[in-house]
Amino acid sequence: MEKVTVVKVGGAVVEDKAKLLRLLYNFTRLEGRKVLVHGGGRLATTMATRLGIESRMVEGRRITDRETLEVVTMVYGGLVNKQLVALLQARGVNAIGLTGADLNIIRSHRRPIRDGIDYGFVGDVDCVDGERLSQLIESGVAPVVAPLTHDGEGSMLNTNADTIASETAKSLASRYRVSLVYCFEKPGVLADPDDDSSVIAEIRRADFDRLKSDGTVSGGMIPKLENAFAAIDSGVSQVVITSADALGTPTGTTVF
Amino acid sequence: MEKVTVVKVGGAVVEDKAKLLRLLYNFTRLEGRKVLVHGGGRLATTMATRLGIESRMVEGRRITDRETLEVVTMVYGGLVNKQLVALLQARGVNAIGLTGADLNIIRSHRRPIRDGIDYGFVGDVDCVDGERLSQLIESGVAPVVAPLTHDGEGSMLNTNADTIASETAKSLASRYRVSLVYCFEKPGVLADPDDDSSVIAEIRRADFDRLKSDGTVSGGMIPKLENAFAAIDSGVSQVVITSADALGTPTGTTVF
Repeated sequence: MEKVTVVKVGGAVVEDKAKLLRLLYNFTRLEGRKVLVHGGGRLATTMATRLGIESRMVEGRRITDRETLEVVTMVYGGLVNKQLVALLQARGVNAIGLTGADLNIIRSHRRPIRDGIDYGFVGDVDCVDGERLSQLIESGVAPVVAPLTHDGEGSMLNTNADTIASETAKSLASRYRVSLVYCFEKPGVLADPDDDSSVIAEIRRADFDRLKSDGTVSGGMIPKLENAFAAIDSGVSQVVITSADALGTPTGTTVF
Repeated sequence: MEKVTVVKVGGAVVEDKAKLLRLLYNFTRLEGRKVLVHGGGRLATTMATRLGIESRMVEGRRITDRETLEVVTMVYGGLVNKQLVALLQARGVNAIGLTGADLNIIRSHRRPIRDGIDYGFVGDVDCVDGERLSQLIESGVAPVVAPLTHDGEGSMLNTNADTIASETAKSLASRYRVSLVYCFEKPGVLADPDDDSSVIAEIRRADFDRLKSDGTVSGGMIPKLENAFAAIDSGVSQVVITSADALGTPTGTTVF
């Protein structure tokens, strides 16, 4: 099977021009087929503030009322996505910007109210059209996917970029050997959170249970790794957690 | 040759939900292959004002400094484009939103300073990739094109939507019988500007010269018709000037 690399890059890289250009340089040099999934939450918060719209977060997820949906549609689907596409085109990568609505690539449903929390226009992914995505990839195109989906009834929905990345990777797993790379502020999963040189090179499922129980892995890294193993269970070959600067180098943490 | 209809709809329709839904209803019912090109200038002006950015226009064109480029990239490429795509998907049209940067569909260059006027990040179109566009159209997809292009060096450029529509129509003319439809506030070119029932049904080039010299056609309608004849000269079969409400009906003015 041919290889595809699905790279997820977050808002912290997207809003820092120097970091972004290094990431794009590394992305451009990746061999073979590739997909870029981006966030942009920090820029959305900045834009919302400029527009006098309050940003409310619950467990790291944005409460998305109608006004906020307009902001994220503008910022993720327009500002960030088109900047990335134009910069990749300038580097010889034939990129195409997509939200879930484009070509009906990612269908979702509005998250139901749970425990009294109404996230508003937030989408939980139902299905990624891996076949359509493969057709694009096979024609030499690099999809650049914004963290937006649609409900099939005319509404865009705000959707977590990590989830978009893992669902996209899974949808391609029957057709390709998929490597899913999460670019992160840290160089990988650290044995000592205060020591950037303590990257754990490989984590298998059995290691994960041990690392959790002995407290090496904690906090936000646990759901990240759980998502990684869920992707592996769905046929993704490997998940790499690394820094944007190190994308394409054999460093970081490989989960398999 | 198979037929393609390229429909251009302006900001006045895009920002009026009732008008927009009628337009999309009519667009959905058009038979055969189709492309939608949209504006959004009024929404960009509103958004710029909310962000404290002054909108400066010269001869109806927006002076586009770096901040304004961000606004139009957000509003045209994100807010308006994705709303249209999601609404079309809900109506069973497999739409894909594109700017000129996506798939390198429309390359342009920054407009040079002329007569002391620097339009800033405004693009004059060099080339539309009609082959790539045809491949999408042949796969049953309806491209929805925002009035944004790119310079191939990493920058988006703000580009007139009428021009995008005519250049897109021309790029398809060797492969299809192309009908280019400009949706407009009026029901067509009027013999009496105060009488909406005075639509001139057909205008040939010889008629145009007469209508200009006797003063029937004046003001902003002259460049519109000149652009229409330029499209005809480049192989477009017909140009229709009509209202968004009447799209798909045999009314309006046909230029050929």
